[in-house]
Amino acid sequence: MGFACFDTHRRLRRGFPEAVFCEGKTPDQIVQIAKRLILLKESLLLTRLKPESAFYIQKKIPAISYHPVARLGYWLPKKHVVKKGLAPVVSAGTADIPVAEEAALTLEFLGSRSERIYDIGVAGIHRILDALPMLQRAKVAVVVAGMEGALPSVIAGLISCPVIAVPTSTGYGANFGGIAPLLSMMNSCAPGVGVVNIDNGFGAGYLAHLINTVRR
Amino acid sequence: MGFACFDTHRRLRRGFPEAVFCEGKTPDQIVQIAKRLILLKESLLLTRLKPESAFYIQKKIPAISYHPVARLGYWLPKKHVVKKGLAPVVSAGTADIPVAEEAALTLEFLGSRSERIYDIGVAGIHRILDALPMLQRAKVAVVVAGMEGALPSVIAGLISCPVIAVPTSTGYGANFGGIAPLLSMMNSCAPGVGVVNIDNGFGAGYLAHLINTVRR
Amino acid sequence: MGFACFDTHRRLRRGFPEAVFCEGKTPDQIVQIAKRLILLKESLLLTRLKPESAFYIQKKIPAISYHPVARLGYWLPKKHVVKKGLAPVVSAGTADIPVAEEAALTLEFLGSRSERIYDIGVAGIHRILDALPMLQRAKVAVVVAGMEGALPSVIAGLISCPVIAVPTSTGYGANFGGIAPLLSMMNSCAPGVGVVNIDNGFGAGYLAHLINTVRR
Amino acid sequence: MGFACFDTHRRLRRGFPEAVFCEGKTPDQIVQIAKRLILLKESLLLTRLKPESAFYIQKKIPAISYHPVARLGYWLPKKHVVKKGLAPVVSAGTADIPVAEEAALTLEFLGSRSERIYDIGVAGIHRILDALPMLQRAKVAVVVAGMEGALPSVIAGLISCPVIAVPTSTGYGANFGGIAPLLSMMNSCAPGVGVVNIDNGFGAGYLAHLINTVRR
Amino acid sequence: MGFACFDTHRRLRRGFPEAVFCEGKTPDQIVQIAKRLILLKESLLLTRLKPESAFYIQKKIPAISYHPVARLGYWLPKKHVVKKGLAPVVSAGTADIPVAEEAALTLEFLGSRSERIYDIGVAGIHRILDALPMLQRAKVAVVVAGMEGALPSVIAGLISCPVIAVPTSTGYGANFGGIAPLLSMMNSCAPGVGVVNIDNGFGAGYLAHLINTVRR
Amino acid sequence: MGFACFDTHRRLRRGFPEAVFCEGKTPDQIVQIAKRLILLKESLLLTRLKPESAFYIQKKIPAISYHPVARLGYWLPKKHVVKKGLAPVVSAGTADIPVAEEAALTLEFLGSRSERIYDIGVAGIHRILDALPMLQRAKVAVVVAGMEGALPSVIAGLISCPVIAVPTSTGYGANFGGIAPLLSMMNSCAPGVGVVNIDNGFGAGYLAHLINTVRR
Amino acid sequence: MGFACFDTHRRLRRGFPEAVFCEGKTPDQIVQIAKRLILLKESLLLTRLKPESAFYIQKKIPAISYHPVARLGYWLPKKHVVKKGLAPVVSAGTADIPVAEEAALTLEFLGSRSERIYDIGVAGIHRILDALPMLQRAKVAVVVAGMEGALPSVIAGLISCPVIAVPTSTGYGANFGGIAPLLSMMNSCAPGVGVVNIDNGFGAGYLAHLINTVRR
Amino acid sequence: MGFACFDTHRRLRRGFPEAVFCEGKTPDQIVQIAKRLILLKESLLLTRLKPESAFYIQKKIPAISYHPVARLGYWLPKKHVVKKGLAPVVSAGTADIPVAEEAALTLEFLGSRSERIYDIGVAGIHRILDALPMLQRAKVAVVVAGMEGALPSVIAGLISCPVIAVPTSTGYGANFGGIAPLLSMMNSCAPGVGVVNIDNGFGAGYLAHLINTVRR
Repeated sequence: MGFACFDTHRRLRRGFPEAVFCEGKTPDQIVQIAKRLILLKESLLLTRLKPESAFYIQKKIPAISYHPVARLGYWLPKKHVVKKGLAPVVSAGTADIPVAEEAALTLEFLGSRSERIYDIGVAGIHRILDALPMLQRAKVAVVVAGMEGALPSVIAGLISCPVIAVPTSTGYGANFGGIAPLLSMMNSCAPGVGVVNIDNGFGAGYLAHLINTVRR
Repeated sequence: MGFACFDTHRRLRRGFPEAVFCEGKTPDQIVQIAKRLILLKESLLLTRLKPESAFYIQKKIPAISYHPVARLGYWLPKKHVVKKGLAPVVSAGTADIPVAEEAALTLEFLGSRSERIYDIGVAGIHRILDALPMLQRAKVAVVVAGMEGALPSVIAGLISCPVIAVPTSTGYGANFGGIAPLLSMMNSCAPGVGVVNIDNGFGAGYLAHLINTVRR
Repeated sequence: MGFACFDTHRRLRRGFPEAVFCEGKTPDQIVQIAKRLILLKESLLLTRLKPESAFYIQKKIPAISYHPVARLGYWLPKKHVVKKGLAPVVSAGTADIPVAEEAALTLEFLGSRSERIYDIGVAGIHRILDALPMLQRAKVAVVVAGMEGALPSVIAGLISCPVIAVPTSTGYGANFGGIAPLLSMMNSCAPGVGVVNIDNGFGAGYLAHLINTVRR
Repeated sequence: MGFACFDTHRRLRRGFPEAVFCEGKTPDQIVQIAKRLILLKESLLLTRLKPESAFYIQKKIPAISYHPVARLGYWLPKKHVVKKGLAPVVSAGTADIPVAEEAALTLEFLGSRSERIYDIGVAGIHRILDALPMLQRAKVAVVVAGMEGALPSVIAGLISCPVIAVPTSTGYGANFGGIAPLLSMMNSCAPGVGVVNIDNGFGAGYLAHLINTVRR
Repeated sequence: MGFACFDTHRRLRRGFPEAVFCEGKTPDQIVQIAKRLILLKESLLLTRLKPESAFYIQKKIPAISYHPVARLGYWLPKKHVVKKGLAPVVSAGTADIPVAEEAALTLEFLGSRSERIYDIGVAGIHRILDALPMLQRAKVAVVVAGMEGALPSVIAGLISCPVIAVPTSTGYGANFGGIAPLLSMMNSCAPGVGVVNIDNGFGAGYLAHLINTVRR
Repeated sequence: MGFACFDTHRRLRRGFPEAVFCEGKTPDQIVQIAKRLILLKESLLLTRLKPESAFYIQKKIPAISYHPVARLGYWLPKKHVVKKGLAPVVSAGTADIPVAEEAALTLEFLGSRSERIYDIGVAGIHRILDALPMLQRAKVAVVVAGMEGALPSVIAGLISCPVIAVPTSTGYGANFGGIAPLLSMMNSCAPGVGVVNIDNGFGAGYLAHLINTVRR
Repeated sequence: MGFACFDTHRRLRRGFPEAVFCEGKTPDQIVQIAKRLILLKESLLLTRLKPESAFYIQKKIPAISYHPVARLGYWLPKKHVVKKGLAPVVSAGTADIPVAEEAALTLEFLGSRSERIYDIGVAGIHRILDALPMLQRAKVAVVVAGMEGALPSVIAGLISCPVIAVPTSTGYGANFGGIAPLLSMMNSCAPGVGVVNIDNGFGAGYLAHLINTVRR
Repeated sequence: MGFACFDTHRRLRRGFPEAVFCEGKTPDQIVQIAKRLILLKESLLLTRLKPESAFYIQKKIPAISYHPVARLGYWLPKKHVVKKGLAPVVSAGTADIPVAEEAALTLEFLGSRSERIYDIGVAGIHRILDALPMLQRAKVAVVVAGMEGALPSVIAGLISCPVIAVPTSTGYGANFGGIAPLLSMMNSCAPGVGVVNIDNGFGAGYLAHLINTVRR
């Protein structure tokens, strides 16, 4: 197609189809890519899809679903079987929800079972303790936080499974577009934490699904 | 003296004598300043005093005491009465102790009552909960942390008095000499936190003493 | 409510209700949160509330007041008694007034007595000296400054109470969104200064109120 | 002990004993901590232990082993059973080996089976392709790289298991102490990559072990 | 003309006419400069020309061509002979195409022969290997990449000609407007790579043309 | 006036009236300040005045003049006598002209004689050499440059008077809003260069005027 | 000489001989350069000369004088006549004295009259006011400050001559090697301030001398 | 060998043997690598080799030559024929010579003809003009500069061949370990400049040799 070179070996190599990152692509380019993948009966995941682009694309390909908070478009060739392991997604504040939703929906799209635990910041420890019973049943947890980004450390200190930390650009002043929580998470005093890029809910969900479904 | 211009009005204006920041001063300059202040019957606090300089200075002025962990030298014209309010100093890790000691000794030097609660990081929440009864009796708390610097947020969420947060350059990798915990503390999701400079135990102790002794 | 988890123990634990940070929340989410808190007879403080959101929210809940310069919405269950101690708010330039107003209104909302001293920068020292008599009566002072952020140092050198410094993103060129005054304030050569986040008038007012009402 | 507060619940909570980060601790403090943990029959892992400190400690506690390249000291109460899953550690250059060894030894200390694949940078793709058969059998891979930090992306594009990326401060000029590879790894175009702190071989090994032994 | 001072010796000195960087210039200023150069029978290249400015300029000077993706306007006094050497332009992602097109068109405008190889990221090595036969025939290659910016290293490891690397501001989170790939490219472990400014397709094309036509 | 505190001693102390920085002020606030100063027969200089604000202000106070390129408004109580010394303003590119004009107009407003020498970048040294005769007659020179910011060094190496360097945010990619030329100018290998803030044409013109009129 | 290319036109062009920056040069290289300049009867100024190098050089060329605090070596062909204008050098703290001395000695070496006013920080405004009478007689003032770097703003607000500001790397924590005071000085709210590089006492003295001796 | 994996295809693929970057390698590791390559009759280039390591290595393998200024060790299987094209290396200051020598020796080691033009900074333009005749005969030029890093822009504006720019960490204050000249070179207003890493003389020489010997 000139502007996109498909990686048709990816499903074989990695077990999942390619996700399409929509920023920097025109709606028409996205439509062409989507049509091609649907034709190949490949699952389709469109990340960072703006509402106005989604509106245009759904008119051309009505089968595509769209989740506006997470800015995700998707299409599945068939209903998949949900995997057993639990991969909860925790967020520190209301403003972190779009990123958390992107992670939770990515997990579900790929076939993992997720749960949402939102708005439990470190300034109110008892809310975290309330959520502990569910977190302790998890095989992997995604923890999303802006501000000082301390939630992954606190949670990783309480549970025994891997924690995927996602810094968000939420906050003001010296948050610096997510650098403050990114650095916090990199410096977590609790081991067992892996960090993905700022606001990268998709990447967190994808990595958590890989961990949740590690073959044995 | 050419190299130092005394602020003899300071005690009147601010209620405390001037502290002498020793980095960048020669041992001989420090001795001259110390002699002058002792002559004036002013309390003397020497911050960031290296052991080798302290050794030299104590030989010239044996009355000066030295605390090697906190790198503080001091001399008091008379025993002061300890103030009532409690100002505990909390630290996240063993490596934060020099800064925490600098804060606690500054508090005590100025006349406040302090308590040390060391090595209670956010990765082990129960250790924080164990310290809670004492923290809840505080009129102000100093919280010292390196790594991800999350401890002040967690503590400020649990108690009702002001929290003075001190980032330390403890840690490795993306700590960046204390920038990571500094940004965490600036972005604390719990209000009621004021931040001082990286490794500035003296500044934290001084500010905590001011708060502890606010006139009413 | 799914998107927000209330911290109903906060009033007991910290003595104040939770403030609601409105950035990143939809007007409808804010309305739901506000209704819940009003129902619980909790004081309500909405920070960073944009005029267009305030307009929408006031139509749904007319009892809520709005201050457009400080971008604060609030509702009080009953008139509170103003505390005795004085907590003045000083600002360096006209452009710092929105942040200064956020601090002063937060102080008043929580029950402290404040005074505004605006537009007294360090380039005109005599204006600072004119304000000195009032500043010397303060139990705590909030000092707001952009540009080179030197005002807190100068004021802390003149008075004996704690100073809460607020850097602002006011200025141009190498101000870097408030980093320049933030660094100045962190490096204040006058001890007794605690710093809050860039443009964080609410945090400064909250911390100043805690200090102003330290129990004894 | 004053300077260290043990987290004796950790083994129950997280399944592993606490590791002791030795930077910022005196040899005597480390000896005291080590004796206490050995008394409790806890496995002991000392990270960032300098050779001269190790020499001192081994004289006091001869049972402790020391690996100078990885700067790790350790003691195990009994021989553990090695887990089945393979967790290879890959490094880009010879200078990355200390960090890679820290990761591999941590994996082995905790009970995982590891393999070392060293010195395969992205400038010689065929060396990566040679290692592919082993990498494709992995349940999780640790990839250590300095310079441009591209190796995790390339490997994550070739295999289907989670990749833990460790940036190192190896390199010169605009590497900036590991920031360059850290940013590369955060921005990996291949999903399935989680990043730990610069030079944090211990953290990578710990997280990889958690993933390798996810309960099912 | 007051606002622009022509460098009429440039063609003699450097072999090429001056390119006109259009950001920060008004459409009328661009028209005046363009008219002057056309009058002098100088080739004209307008970089970073926005569509709305191009529309205005083409109405005034219809002879000028415009390429909207690369944001380039140009006019040639006569058809030039295409040079023999091949200078392919490779890009990592679809979103890098505008910068890649700016490089390829600059090469062609100056008289070099280019080829486009788009959308071959390092996460799918086999796509790079597919392009290898053409790349191995190149006299110089331009490689454009955002995200982690690893493509130039991988390609420079596979071919023997100079590689001009162009970081792009494509990506999200910790890309920081192109700093992440810029640092990657500066730290390339494969020698033979020269880096130009972020998003600077024109500069890359110009430098590649100089290399492609080095006199011998 | 509540929002502005006049520095009526300034003319006595510094010899010039206060300039009014308009960013962050409402048009109404500017009008009130301007009326007050005009009433006091003070010269009035409004910097960073946006066209739409200027339009509003000129309707209220028609005596105020406005220069849209330099974004300066001004009013003079009487025609001033132009001082003898020459203070030329040099700019590197067309896009630097707004800042250069702000400097030149400030010089003229304060009473200095200026000359404009625009669009002479270091990539065409002969254009600088052409301007040398005039530059060598200067008592002080203002040099404005974005991109790599090298022009002040080159000019300071050719003339014997002080050079005031102004970095601009002109440029793209790794210019970082003017940081690149700011650092270049700070590191100038030619002594005799003083730097003002990014885009701060007013500050450069003011400082140049002070130098041009140093009393003797 | 291979490693150094003399600029023998400089005295004609700029009125002063070249200063020799000694960092990065071997003592033998410095000796060769010094001998050549002395032979040419040129004044010689050696900046950043370490004591051990000075010792070596003085043994080879006893005529050279050395000032250890300012790290300056110098030789004058004949006694110069001191110029009339006063150029005082002010420093904020004792630790700033080496940089301040470098500035004052450079001024005197070039023929200006200087005065030293040391240790007057902004935290004690009355010390600044004490120095005001002398500062008001200055034709140009050099102001050296580390920490928050506020002194140039305060002084520029009190006097009418140009101020040359020198940030120093003095301080700790978030001073960042002088970035904090550099940014403060760039953002000075008082116009009339030009900034030179961090710790660059020579550059400040040179620029101040140019201003002090502006021809008229 | 465990710690190093040879890229024996490299000569075929890239035309040159692998260079050995010695930082982070023990002298014994370097000896083992060198012996292996000499056995294979491969040319050997050891970069960043410290004098004390070189001393040790030369005792083990006397055939290896060492250049202490450039910190390069090398061994050639046979005398190579020098290529025709001229690739001069220009440096701005005496302190840049080690990096410039590393570039010039790398060029000569690989078979190019180089010339050294040292100590011609932009503050003395006439020294650059003196070197112009030789520079205009070049097929590619390497330009090394610290401080403000402006030399590559000025030279690229004067000649028509490609310029390889090398920033150095020479300088003080706001040079920031080479970031200042790196940014200058990235933002060069003269097209035709490619930048390599800070202090990377080897990389510059290697790239210049590739350009100098582009096949046709």
